[in-house]
Amino acid sequence: MPEFRRDPVSGRWAIIAPERGKRPTDFLLPEENTKEGRCPLCPGSEDLTPPEVLALGRPEEAPPNSPGWKVRVVPNKYPALIPGEIEKETEGLYERFSGAGVHEVIVETPEHGKSLVRFSPNELALVFEAYRLRLEELARDGRWRYVLIFKNRGARAGASLSHDHSQLVALPLIPELVKIELERSRIYHERNGECLFCKLVKSEQNGPRRICENERFLAFMAYAPRQPLETWIMPKKHRSDFLDHFDENLEALCDIFLKVFGKLEAILPGLPYNFVLHTAPLGSAPLPYYHWHFEIIPCLTRVAGFEWGTGAYIVPLLPEEAAAFLRDISP
Amino acid sequence: MPEFRRDPVSGRWAIIAPERGKRPTDFLLPEENTKEGRCPLCPGSEDLTPPEVLALGRPEEAPPNSPGWKVRVVPNKYPALIPGEIEKETEGLYERFSGAGVHEVIVETPEHGKSLVRFSPNELALVFEAYRLRLEELARDGRWRYVLIFKNRGARAGASLSHDHSQLVALPLIPELVKIELERSRIYHERNGECLFCKLVKSEQNGPRRICENERFLAFMAYAPRQPLETWIMPKKHRSDFLDHFDENLEALCDIFLKVFGKLEAILPGLPYNFVLHTAPLGSAPLPYYHWHFEIIPCLTRVAGFEWGTGAYIVPLLPEEAAAFLRDISP
Repeated sequence: MPEFRRDPVSGRWAIIAPERGKRPTDFLLPEENTKEGRCPLCPGSEDLTPPEVLALGRPEEAPPNSPGWKVRVVPNKYPALIPGEIEKETEGLYERFSGAGVHEVIVETPEHGKSLVRFSPNELALVFEAYRLRLEELARDGRWRYVLIFKNRGARAGASLSHDHSQLVALPLIPELVKIELERSRIYHERNGECLFCKLVKSEQNGPRRICENERFLAFMAYAPRQPLETWIMPKKHRSDFLDHFDENLEALCDIFLKVFGKLEAILPGLPYNFVLHTAPLGSAPLPYYHWHFEIIPCLTRVAGFEWGTGAYIVPLLPEEAAAFLRDISP
Repeated sequence: MPEFRRDPVSGRWAIIAPERGKRPTDFLLPEENTKEGRCPLCPGSEDLTPPEVLALGRPEEAPPNSPGWKVRVVPNKYPALIPGEIEKETEGLYERFSGAGVHEVIVETPEHGKSLVRFSPNELALVFEAYRLRLEELARDGRWRYVLIFKNRGARAGASLSHDHSQLVALPLIPELVKIELERSRIYHERNGECLFCKLVKSEQNGPRRICENERFLAFMAYAPRQPLETWIMPKKHRSDFLDHFDENLEALCDIFLKVFGKLEAILPGLPYNFVLHTAPLGSAPLPYYHWHFEIIPCLTRVAGFEWGTGAYIVPLLPEEAAAFLRDISP
């Protein structure tokens, strides 16, 4: 069983997951882990993954775990967390609990080699629909407090498979960075009587970091990014939960996503990147101080000694300059 | 001028340093940035760096910036920060101040291709001696609150030059991660009447994560690491500042360093890694609650979507298993 551990000095969490595991001597493998042969995420290879938890787009008469799907969700074969009892243990300075959770892979397309930027709006809508269905299902489970949805694209960005996919992890705790966002925005709201994110949207909409927008969403460069070209996508209206007004937002969300990735891809073809969805914790009532949003983090510079030692990031590109560049480019 | 910026949502700091800078389209370069030709850190190429601020081991009669040195410290040619006035500016949600600081390169050896693990104890002692002299000098300057010393080894770990070197950055603020360590250990001391680090040393010394020790230092695997094989080196006696009892500690420090890196190198030859020195802020009186220490962070897994989204790290190797492995290996 994997476990959560808290560093006694910094308070930082780690998930020790030897199930994914290797021997200490196994780590220096080549960067590009091209396991050629059958791609386990392609149609026809459904037997190479654990049985699916969701498939969208397959004719109803076809059996589960057969081809014909447009989006497919399967448990991660090498999970960082596995469902189980949550048992805490504190011993002296050391705090740990069992690594109970859910780790799934959302296969975004049946087409190997088709990257998200080339999806049609309808294809992308099905991916978000899969997010929605999994979020709803995992909320009903009752054991999880948070579901983090994220994507690693490209070997440099940590993807071990090249077939486009995103991942989700259901956690028995609220992740530290989300906690910090919630706490800081709650305090801001208390002090200023307005939502920090609403204020941010207003300010970024008329500012030098704006990339593009539509009637419902704004995309802008982060003011203090972790990587060059770090881009945030945020609902303009006050919405704390990704599932809030989901159907109404869907078309505009696909539109802004394809615009942003089209622009990024036009500047840096094949860009390796990560994105994460930050949303209110599972089962929250609507929060007056929070907005769900996507953070898109290109993988262009290295996390190195300075970042490990300070927690701050050196970024060699002005967000305002990057935004001007992206604004002017049409995919 | 570079600038410090604080993210209005998370509070995280970034240094925007377009001086190092590139155009947005310049970023997708090959991983190994082997600028062959003359290595700017080799003896005989002193004209390729800014004029040195320190050289150790060169005969006194030789002129500055000439060969013959054993360790040489030069300003970074592409600095993340540059000396200057510290001007703050807050505008609505956005907090920034000028990127004033010092960014230097410590060339650890005249021998290109000789890595730290193959240094003699005396050669390594000169590197630490250079750290000491620069820390003392930068403390006298009066403008800086903290000096972070770190090393990036290998292209995967962010080193843009293969000639072994470490770096230092003098900062007008205490880095967030150091602040958190100081704050948490101060509170621990207040509540428990003992030093968290002293307690940690005692506990790790007899525990399953111990790697090796000598009369003055202990090396152990971090309980909740950010990377497989993350290793900490800590003085056994209570010392909050790296400069405290420096001369007395030096031989033992070199000994433990060479032991640890010898073991790591024996398991994973050519291991890319980062290390950072955490010590008390410049000019602190001795702190009753803090220990200076080195954190050695191998570069073996990727910071990816999960880590960006949560602030927690997935580590596929048990620290206890890694420690057992390292304990048994002799370089």
